[in-house]
Amino acid sequence: MDAIPRLLSVARGERPADHVLRNGRIVNTFTGEIEQADIAIAEGRIAGIGTGYQGVDETDLAGAYVAPGLIDAHVHIESSLCIPSQFAAAVLPRGVTSVITDPHEIANVAGVAGVRFIADASKGLPLDVTVMAPSCVPATNMATSGGTISAEDLRTLRADGTAHGLAEVMNFPGVIDADPTMLAKLATMSCRPIDGHAPGVTGKRLNGYVAAGVGSDHECVTAAEAREKLSRGLYLLIREATNARNLDALLDAVTPQNSRRVCFCTDDRTPVHLLEAGSVDEMVRRAIARGIEPVEAIRMATLNTAEWFGLPHLGAIAPGRAASLFVFDDLKAPSARMVFSRGQLVASDGTLARGAIAPAGPINPSVAGKCRVDVATIRWDIPARSGRVRVIGSMPDQLVTENRILNTKVIDGNAVADTSRDVLKMAVIERHRGTANVGLGFIQGIGLRRGAIAGTVAHDHHNLVCIGADDPSMRAAAGAVAKMGGGLAVAVGERIVAALALPVGGLMSDRPLAEVAAGYQSVVSTAREIGSPLADPFMAMSFMALEVIPSLKLTDQGLVDVEQFKIVDLFV
Amino acid sequence: MDAIPRLLSVARGERPADHVLRNGRIVNTFTGEIEQADIAIAEGRIAGIGTGYQGVDETDLAGAYVAPGLIDAHVHIESSLCIPSQFAAAVLPRGVTSVITDPHEIANVAGVAGVRFIADASKGLPLDVTVMAPSCVPATNMATSGGTISAEDLRTLRADGTAHGLAEVMNFPGVIDADPTMLAKLATMSCRPIDGHAPGVTGKRLNGYVAAGVGSDHECVTAAEAREKLSRGLYLLIREATNARNLDALLDAVTPQNSRRVCFCTDDRTPVHLLEAGSVDEMVRRAIARGIEPVEAIRMATLNTAEWFGLPHLGAIAPGRAASLFVFDDLKAPSARMVFSRGQLVASDGTLARGAIAPAGPINPSVAGKCRVDVATIRWDIPARSGRVRVIGSMPDQLVTENRILNTKVIDGNAVADTSRDVLKMAVIERHRGTANVGLGFIQGIGLRRGAIAGTVAHDHHNLVCIGADDPSMRAAAGAVAKMGGGLAVAVGERIVAALALPVGGLMSDRPLAEVAAGYQSVVSTAREIGSPLADPFMAMSFMALEVIPSLKLTDQGLVDVEQFKIVDLFV
Repeated sequence: MDAIPRLLSVARGERPADHVLRNGRIVNTFTGEIEQADIAIAEGRIAGIGTGYQGVDETDLAGAYVAPGLIDAHVHIESSLCIPSQFAAAVLPRGVTSVITDPHEIANVAGVAGVRFIADASKGLPLDVTVMAPSCVPATNMATSGGTISAEDLRTLRADGTAHGLAEVMNFPGVIDADPTMLAKLATMSCRPIDGHAPGVTGKRLNGYVAAGVGSDHECVTAAEAREKLSRGLYLLIREATNARNLDALLDAVTPQNSRRVCFCTDDRTPVHLLEAGSVDEMVRRAIARGIEPVEAIRMATLNTAEWFGLPHLGAIAPGRAASLFVFDDLKAPSARMVFSRGQLVASDGTLARGAIAPAGPINPSVAGKCRVDVATIRWDIPARSGRVRVIGSMPDQLVTENRILNTKVIDGNAVADTSRDVLKMAVIERHRGTANVGLGFIQGIGLRRGAIAGTVAHDHHNLVCIGADDPSMRAAAGAVAKMGGGLAVAVGERIVAALALPVGGLMSDRPLAEVAAGYQSVVSTAREIGSPLADPFMAMSFMALEVIPSLKLTDQGLVDVEQFKIVDLFV
Repeated sequence: MDAIPRLLSVARGERPADHVLRNGRIVNTFTGEIEQADIAIAEGRIAGIGTGYQGVDETDLAGAYVAPGLIDAHVHIESSLCIPSQFAAAVLPRGVTSVITDPHEIANVAGVAGVRFIADASKGLPLDVTVMAPSCVPATNMATSGGTISAEDLRTLRADGTAHGLAEVMNFPGVIDADPTMLAKLATMSCRPIDGHAPGVTGKRLNGYVAAGVGSDHECVTAAEAREKLSRGLYLLIREATNARNLDALLDAVTPQNSRRVCFCTDDRTPVHLLEAGSVDEMVRRAIARGIEPVEAIRMATLNTAEWFGLPHLGAIAPGRAASLFVFDDLKAPSARMVFSRGQLVASDGTLARGAIAPAGPINPSVAGKCRVDVATIRWDIPARSGRVRVIGSMPDQLVTENRILNTKVIDGNAVADTSRDVLKMAVIERHRGTANVGLGFIQGIGLRRGAIAGTVAHDHHNLVCIGADDPSMRAAAGAVAKMGGGLAVAVGERIVAALALPVGGLMSDRPLAEVAAGYQSVVSTAREIGSPLADPFMAMSFMALEVIPSLKLTDQGLVDVEQFKIVDLFV
């Protein structure tokens, strides 16, 4: 019997359901009410709600609450350092059954093939993964990325069903100022959701951004900014990422009248953060704790998100929708006790069900071997051409840097690191194309007293970045990363003291998230042991090569003065 | 300069807007708030909201309210007896700038060509008309319609952009019971809005209807029914039609928590009703008068409807959206003082702006000449084959009829009308294909003491229907209708005493709505003068041939016992 006729026969009560969940207190996201009823499931979907259904399997929920599976409205899966299956294994037990993902990071490494990798690797998972096409790859032409995404690529990704819409349009100046390339990209996704990214944009320029067709924003940091964006028609995607925490501030902007246009997203969470705090489930609990009515908080992570993205199979417990839902006991602090995805029990008491996710196969060739660096051929020395040098001034918990000019420390004619002033050497090595491009410079604020750290997570181009106190340590750390096919490493002299392999595009591991989190904690704590006072020196490093955030950054092409938007000389 | 770059340059404040509306109190449907600001318009769209915009034209609203143009969520334009341009001329001055229309009536007359006629006749109008494809044409095979709409037709209408979604799926038993033809029709509109029509459907069968993919309903009559449908995920389209008035009852089901899924629609309003009361603008005022918060009431006729149908250019005053809006003075009773459609002032103080709508050309061949009846060849007599006859028992203000069995009055061997018992003769004459099919029978409850009434508005097949006290009057009335190419007529003997021509498909006039309303009032009052006690004998007649509503109906193929769902003999 075909799926739909069978679903309808179950709905009518003429055939037994695959599963009946009895006596649940259903969170009805349409009415805002709690409804005591049974849920009949067939063909992975909800067939009916009410009483009198019989099921092949039956579970008595005994008055526990049931809510639709939570949806993360915007997440870069790559930031978990895990491939989709391992990411899924980590968030599903939390009640997160759907995510909207922007494979922006892997697209910078592998272009369209990277986008397809995330889509393909998500197929068949019990996590419902909606892929939005990255809109701004590469970020600029002042760094060498591994891939590009053109308007033509976007059209292809839409036409073949890979991409549902356009992911965060970070080039907001391009949009507002009607850059033809950006308008062409927006045009490829007409009548589809187009996510925004417009930090601090306000007034007339915000009008322009919205008029161009962008429909959401997840970059608000103040309630006033959120209120203005909501009033202009942007969906407010409240973000609580590891290094951008906006939940508390933005909840002040939410009212019963505007909450239908508010969603929750995690954007970027480290594996440790995901493991310890969770995903949008944590946001729901915190929103409730801050006084948001519980059903309203759940709506922000379910129906509202389904509506913004036009995903009518998600966001509610209702006939025809995916039977993806979670059971919990405390309406004031929803914490998943059972999680169902498309009708299958996939997790209980925070633990993934055995066999819920098939083991991933070998690393997909489209994203394997993406670290084409031969450290033996790289020249690390910087001949001193002046007594004054431009130095990146990194500051704790900030992506922006200062453009500092300091005296050069010179040894044997070369400009060198000077740990007495916390001046470290930094290198960005092109890793995608084997060009052996190397950008060299200096940075303050990382704090290593000795050794070096290196990694292939370096927004947005994700070249191999390395910061160290001496050249041998840097060579060793970078060499270890290259040898792993990408990853993170800490070296002291020629000795590798900690490492985490990220062989999938140099961004992700295929190991379980808990293992990756432990590996990540190891490299971070080791970097701290050799002197860095930062909470997370690897995350700090990963933004020091991002040439779109002021003021001074280093790419494989050299030192970028972001305000001038050009490459500048290291020496003054 | 292209439209989008110009729109953005206006948004940025770098070029003057086409028009700036200053000092409006803007009804913000996103936030539920009233916002005092200026509105800059360019390229027919809203470029920006705020202050500091300059315009080629400027209008000082001096604190008047401005709301997005109202949207009628479901209307059969044909019920206005006017073609789209004249319908538009009637509703635009009310602030109704968009309608979602189901050309179900003309589709029964002219099939796909009828659907295309409504779409084509709406192009270029200042009324934004979204066409939904009729899902159930013909209603049954117990009547002869002029057109059919197959699943293949639906696919074509979707693919070529004519149809936005699927209109009210009236064959709800077919859907719920998984009739393959109906499921095939639903499948043609996957990922598009599918409107429902499920009077009284509840419980498990409602689950089935929703599980099949239907997303709305406009047939609720009680608050309890509305609550159940809302809780299952159907959008509630509250209908206030001329002969089905549900607003007052259903507003009781609306709460602040569920109102986002409530819309307003008129479904079928006679020209007189439209002229006197208006369209959804009247529903907004009445909802406010009944205690719905004004901005909430406006949302039900704007943003909510835009969201259900996935029409992101409508429903709000926001950058990029259509500059279709209306200005009014009293938030407690919004009545349009100025109406703008895509930036153009189209009506002021209830009067359409000169030249706002171009005169319609000659009647489109696809819907012209749709009354192929030669009354001279029709036999009106009914040889009496028994002393007992089945009689349609029509009841005031009801579409359902009784199945009555009465003694036959016989003259010269023929069964005849008997005005002493209010038994009138009824004929349904096939008019689309020239088959000369005639169904003959008797009806009680229409009340004519003499003469006859005839018309080509006869749901859903719209054949020529005629009810009268004697054969010469019936022949004259039917002949007058045929001669007009469709319409309504009243005859006494051979004399035509009132007539309204509806030459467009036999359903619509190309004259202004006020003129059509006057003509309609004339035929109705004349029918009342010759004896009918009904408020509207023509509307009553138009449902007496509808073979899907119980109990006894007459089509061109004969007397239909709706409960048995088959043709039955006139005589017992």
